[in-house]
Amino acid sequence: MSDDAGLHNETLDRALQAIDERTYWSAYPEHPKAYGEVAPSEGEAAFNALIGTEFATGQSSDGFATVEETSPYGISLGVSYPRTSVDTVIHDATAAMAVWSKTSPEERAEVCLEILDRLATSSFEMAHAVMHTTGQSFLMAFQAGGPHALDRALEAVAYTYREQKRIPGPVTWEKPQGSRPPLVIEKNWVIKPRGIAVTIGVSTFPTWNGYPGVFASLAAGNPVIVKPHQATVLPFALLVRTARDVLSDMGHDPNVIQMIVDTPGELVAKDLVMRPEVGIVDYTGGSAFGDWLEENVTHAEVYTEKAGVNSVIIDSLADAKGAFRNLSVSMTMYSGQMCTTPQNLFVPADGVPTSDGHISYDDIVSGFVGAIDGLLGDDARAGSILGAIKGTDALDRIDVAQASGTVLLTSRAVPSDEFPGAIMRTPAIVEVDGANKDVYMTEMFGPVIFVVKTASRADSVELAREAALRSGAITWLAYAMEDAAVDAIVGAAVDGGVSVAFNLTGGLFVNQSAAFSDFHVTGANSAGNSSLSDPAFVVRRFRVIGIRTEAAPAV
Amino acid sequence: MSDDAGLHNETLDRALQAIDERTYWSAYPEHPKAYGEVAPSEGEAAFNALIGTEFATGQSSDGFATVEETSPYGISLGVSYPRTSVDTVIHDATAAMAVWSKTSPEERAEVCLEILDRLATSSFEMAHAVMHTTGQSFLMAFQAGGPHALDRALEAVAYTYREQKRIPGPVTWEKPQGSRPPLVIEKNWVIKPRGIAVTIGVSTFPTWNGYPGVFASLAAGNPVIVKPHQATVLPFALLVRTARDVLSDMGHDPNVIQMIVDTPGELVAKDLVMRPEVGIVDYTGGSAFGDWLEENVTHAEVYTEKAGVNSVIIDSLADAKGAFRNLSVSMTMYSGQMCTTPQNLFVPADGVPTSDGHISYDDIVSGFVGAIDGLLGDDARAGSILGAIKGTDALDRIDVAQASGTVLLTSRAVPSDEFPGAIMRTPAIVEVDGANKDVYMTEMFGPVIFVVKTASRADSVELAREAALRSGAITWLAYAMEDAAVDAIVGAAVDGGVSVAFNLTGGLFVNQSAAFSDFHVTGANSAGNSSLSDPAFVVRRFRVIGIRTEAAPAV
Repeated sequence: MSDDAGLHNETLDRALQAIDERTYWSAYPEHPKAYGEVAPSEGEAAFNALIGTEFATGQSSDGFATVEETSPYGISLGVSYPRTSVDTVIHDATAAMAVWSKTSPEERAEVCLEILDRLATSSFEMAHAVMHTTGQSFLMAFQAGGPHALDRALEAVAYTYREQKRIPGPVTWEKPQGSRPPLVIEKNWVIKPRGIAVTIGVSTFPTWNGYPGVFASLAAGNPVIVKPHQATVLPFALLVRTARDVLSDMGHDPNVIQMIVDTPGELVAKDLVMRPEVGIVDYTGGSAFGDWLEENVTHAEVYTEKAGVNSVIIDSLADAKGAFRNLSVSMTMYSGQMCTTPQNLFVPADGVPTSDGHISYDDIVSGFVGAIDGLLGDDARAGSILGAIKGTDALDRIDVAQASGTVLLTSRAVPSDEFPGAIMRTPAIVEVDGANKDVYMTEMFGPVIFVVKTASRADSVELAREAALRSGAITWLAYAMEDAAVDAIVGAAVDGGVSVAFNLTGGLFVNQSAAFSDFHVTGANSAGNSSLSDPAFVVRRFRVIGIRTEAAPAV
Repeated sequence: MSDDAGLHNETLDRALQAIDERTYWSAYPEHPKAYGEVAPSEGEAAFNALIGTEFATGQSSDGFATVEETSPYGISLGVSYPRTSVDTVIHDATAAMAVWSKTSPEERAEVCLEILDRLATSSFEMAHAVMHTTGQSFLMAFQAGGPHALDRALEAVAYTYREQKRIPGPVTWEKPQGSRPPLVIEKNWVIKPRGIAVTIGVSTFPTWNGYPGVFASLAAGNPVIVKPHQATVLPFALLVRTARDVLSDMGHDPNVIQMIVDTPGELVAKDLVMRPEVGIVDYTGGSAFGDWLEENVTHAEVYTEKAGVNSVIIDSLADAKGAFRNLSVSMTMYSGQMCTTPQNLFVPADGVPTSDGHISYDDIVSGFVGAIDGLLGDDARAGSILGAIKGTDALDRIDVAQASGTVLLTSRAVPSDEFPGAIMRTPAIVEVDGANKDVYMTEMFGPVIFVVKTASRADSVELAREAALRSGAITWLAYAMEDAAVDAIVGAAVDGGVSVAFNLTGGLFVNQSAAFSDFHVTGANSAGNSSLSDPAFVVRRFRVIGIRTEAAPAV
């Protein structure tokens, strides 16, 4: 982008370097202190001022609609959003596309990066919106909902920008014709955006999972219609309001991005995505609707992240205490409501080797359960790790899990002084036999952990592989000391189409996926058909039209 | 690829350069003389020796099957092919994949390029096989079926190789942690091929249209099962035999590529593609089955090239005679049996400007019809341009077309001294009014040309645009002198998702699409969902599995 005069060239160039190198880089600071002294209180005040209001975006609407938005922390949100219709948003998006589709990749990237910068300045407002709609702790809501989501968005913009720029400018094609004059043809190519893009949001990580598709589509010249999850609306509303402000400020039609909400009893996603004008659908959420989209929306490109069953394989332990400490955090943070949270811990019945000799099955289990019990013993600390539970389904699954095996640690309610209405639970830890596949090879999203007793170290790997093939998986975490074991686990992970981390004992948790380095979801099993972000996530968001012109004959 | 010791590095490097630059380049000479003095007679003898034989490929089979292969030149082919089953080819492909999927991108590219070189040495044998199954003239069969198809294959290999190599090798990811030690994670990535690839062949250009998918899939580590068109089998059989020989010679399982044929009354494509082991389907052919694939094969990546209605727009003429001369060839070569052949010639009722003043509608029509009539007046020359007709449907369409408007030139049978049984026809040229959309906005594959009388120059553009949106289109050819007209036509072409050529009067015909420069099919209208070749054609033929390992703590 160095030939362009945009404000954000350096950022985009650095992002392009980062996606090639895949070493550590971040554009938006994850430390709240980096945002200055007044930002926290201003952000909180801005969020509080939204409660109970009519949230205007400026788009065509017929007043405001009440929605079924809920706060796991028990506060009343009471925000209403523009009431519109599928016909209206499709109409306005079509009109916006006529111009937006003809802007240059440089200009589109510039607009996208300005939106991201604007969103970054309101990271505290967004953090409160994410926290109170998803149930995440404040720090997770700030980081994952703000800077980490912005990094993921920037990554998607960088990929999309680069893929468009791989088409050369005008060229002269000259084919020799032996003794006759050569054929000389002037060639050029025009980017044609794919069509109206729909992003269907998820209730738990609306911005982190939603931004990449939104910004990849925008950067490729497509207008975007955002359809938030019916119970988590506010974060997408903030995105849409900010993006529309930036578009207007930069001289573009704000209808390049719009939102449409579900209202009680009336879900709009199916009507929306089946419109022939829709060319792109991005979806994060449960498998049932994700599978429906993949099977029925054949007129558009569909990108899904659905459910999976993630596994931890204990093959051998160089640092048992470190492993239990790491697992106690990764398996409990945000109460297992991350698509990357491990659900199953595979432990051989006859124990495993450690760097200090053999450790028995019972000692592994007691070490693991003890680490979690200790971590969550203090209510205040438990609350800051667990956050609150989004959706009553997760509570039901605790009961189902506790009835399906030997309960090693019973789930308990955690009281909150700050939010008396918060729904907080420690995880249920349940022991099941490896043969009892129907129990643990099903996703139990939320605070449910299965300790799976297996016949052997090899059996653990095979069962994890089978779970990935059967139910999908996004992450594996394995503890293994020997090269042969590592190779076998990598082989099984590749078979299962799931990424794998080894021997995490320190400050990195398997749940965490870093923009510009980790591909989030492989697209190689039923947990999703695409990856955040890789070339495959962006290249079909536009097509290329060729123009050939016979050169005028030489005089 | 410069760090690898393969034989074909220079070719691959040059191809990688070519797809970026998109200026003229070719790896395989299109002039028959480049292949030496004995190649023509040896190739013809090799082809003749195949007639009436059992064609062995070495794959698992239960004897040989009679097929419904036909020659438009009326000769008896009588070749039978290995009789196998969907279960057998899936089983053997699955076994082959276990090893092929683990070879390196370098090794796979090396094998692919060796196959292409081996195919190049038997270009004359392939030319006769293509000619006698498709009905192409010998020179077209040689060039499009041989070197041009090999160029397209090499292009696909280059794209696939490069996309795999964009994933970096092992990297160290080091995230600062303020005053604490950084998080240090070793990262690596593994390519996971998508799954068994099926290529469903077309009757008219089996190698040119089929090779890109076959070789992209092979280069990405997927085994390939080829299902030829039931009436055009031999070219794919030669591909499979050659590729299996090369695989064996280079120490690989020859079942990395297999074929399965339709037998009378038993079409196998649907059973084959619905197998869950299939991850990729490449298809060229009619829209009915292509649409079925796009709508039903949701478990695999589906790449289609289907039917379209191509247009010529006469807005103004700098060189009327040159235009008629160029059109007389492009609209008659291979009797309109190219997916890129123009079907409709849009001419304004009140004529158009030329560089020598105004030309009336009648003069345009008489100039155009006269050019075709003159070109095809001599039977021998007509035969060498028209080739022979594949499929009786095309003959039926001549009658339908001639009954649907004013016949400007009646189709006639062209006798052939060399092949008395050849089915050869000059095109029917039929005038229809622009309002009669149902007639000319439907694809009439074969020797049918519509002259569409329009209300104005702008009306021509609008009708061509509507035809592209309604029925798909692969090529437009426009004659226009003024910038405003060119801009309007480009705008309509982009709307319609169709590539456009301007003012062709010389030796390039709009039907021709050059490897390494022209993207064949845009993927942006119903004529096909993908393009030969671009990154989108290859990036989903593999996925990427991430491996993260916590670095051992510093001592």
